[in-house]
Amino acid sequence: MTKDQFDYIKHIIEEKVPIHKFLNVKLLELEQNYAKVIVPFKHEVIGDIRRNRWHGGLLATMMDSIGGLLGTNHFVTEDDKIATVDLRIDYLEEAKAEAIIVDAEIVRLGKRILITKMRTLQNGKVIAEGKGVYSIKINE
Amino acid sequence: MTKDQFDYIKHIIEEKVPIHKFLNVKLLELEQNYAKVIVPFKHEVIGDIRRNRWHGGLLATMMDSIGGLLGTNHFVTEDDKIATVDLRIDYLEEAKAEAIIVDAEIVRLGKRILITKMRTLQNGKVIAEGKGVYSIKINE
Amino acid sequence: MTKDQFDYIKHIIEEKVPIHKFLNVKLLELEQNYAKVIVPFKHEVIGDIRRNRWHGGLLATMMDSIGGLLGTNHFVTEDDKIATVDLRIDYLEEAKAEAIIVDAEIVRLGKRILITKMRTLQNGKVIAEGKGVYSIKINE
Amino acid sequence: MTKDQFDYIKHIIEEKVPIHKFLNVKLLELEQNYAKVIVPFKHEVIGDIRRNRWHGGLLATMMDSIGGLLGTNHFVTEDDKIATVDLRIDYLEEAKAEAIIVDAEIVRLGKRILITKMRTLQNGKVIAEGKGVYSIKINE
Repeated sequence: MTKDQFDYIKHIIEEKVPIHKFLNVKLLELEQNYAKVIVPFKHEVIGDIRRNRWHGGLLATMMDSIGGLLGTNHFVTEDDKIATVDLRIDYLEEAKAEAIIVDAEIVRLGKRILITKMRTLQNGKVIAEGKGVYSIKINE
Repeated sequence: MTKDQFDYIKHIIEEKVPIHKFLNVKLLELEQNYAKVIVPFKHEVIGDIRRNRWHGGLLATMMDSIGGLLGTNHFVTEDDKIATVDLRIDYLEEAKAEAIIVDAEIVRLGKRILITKMRTLQNGKVIAEGKGVYSIKINE
Repeated sequence: MTKDQFDYIKHIIEEKVPIHKFLNVKLLELEQNYAKVIVPFKHEVIGDIRRNRWHGGLLATMMDSIGGLLGTNHFVTEDDKIATVDLRIDYLEEAKAEAIIVDAEIVRLGKRILITKMRTLQNGKVIAEGKGVYSIKINE
Repeated sequence: MTKDQFDYIKHIIEEKVPIHKFLNVKLLELEQNYAKVIVPFKHEVIGDIRRNRWHGGLLATMMDSIGGLLGTNHFVTEDDKIATVDLRIDYLEEAKAEAIIVDAEIVRLGKRILITKMRTLQNGKVIAEGKGVYSIKINE
């Protein structure tokens, strides 16, 4: 991927997807089968008011997004399509009031199915793991 | 549940949880083993820019919240605890640019584990299904 | 479905699939979007030796089989294909040393994806629930 | 773990659990947080008759068993308990008519919850991945 291509996708991800823009997502890395973003903490992401923690659903949101991004990364035409079929998240540790790093890699890319695994980290420690299954249609 | 109890929980859910307040969640029903909310559409929930659709992660967010609410519903002391262990979502239809209804019911409530099943609906049609496993600690 | 069609599929399911034959699976019902089998208890299915219970993996095995059967039910040519992409099982109660009933229904049948939900019952009570996602290829 | 301890557990796993004995499971490695077995192919494990493949449910069966074994590995009294809460399997490749290797490692061991991740391999290649959530009770 050239720097221009990276910058273009970075712009789409960060500025054009409303929920990403709201969350101030920043794309850090993007390769054919791997992606990484950072999402800063802000007040609106709190789900657990007694403990001031991130809502786990927002970790799921970012894990779904970044897994799906790896599918669009393999698109060859404008008509190519992707949709999340199922998403599974294991929460290992609570998400503190700090930035999260979310990354994803491809487990399997078939003709009709994409499977990705995702992680959410804080301070280098994995706090949640995810799996995404996506239905894809890539025109050839 | 008395109307006062319902109103108290409704106030917490709608006003005190920042991500709920951001999403304008409204609690519609709450029984011992069942809960239902409505969440209006707004621009920031869009995840699919080509088609103007809800981000599926926000459906997951609400399904996780409402499943967990059913656990807190059985709390007897202030020290009781709940945490999501895993969350699984099946996406059946895309979520159009309209309000969603999210409901949850208890599948199993044990001493250490709560399992709930959740649904997201639009116009009476189920567009996503979820399962949540929660670790609970209820003091007796 | 005619009685002849039912008998033909029943024969395949019961006699031709080695793991089914080993387990003595009997097909009870089969409709376009629903299937039900019974599997008797026998010594070899025990997984929990302290309590003489079925191994949960065999419940998963049957739930996967019967979910997939609903896909083959929609096949139109000999080249049509189905493969399990992912399988998720929630165990609600332990499976006692008695016969199990396993049923499945279609949640979604798309062009590339089949999603089914399955149940295992003993004495009319649901003891396990499952979801299956299958990749399908139906030639038209 | 001493060789005597290993031999004792190996004996239980291989000889005392009926479904393991039927499948001719052999315990290869066992550490505090890791376990590995081999299971030879035999006719009765076939699920796909057209292609002579293992039934995926038997891979699930072994992944569930070996994940759970890691829980019992941490037991301190005879009253300690473990039960599978949920099991999720991703099937990546079909399982050919050869032996399978199944391994498991602990992702998280809490006071009430054990999470393990499992793999099934053939010829050094991962053909299925699993996650198990177990409810545990370890007396202290």
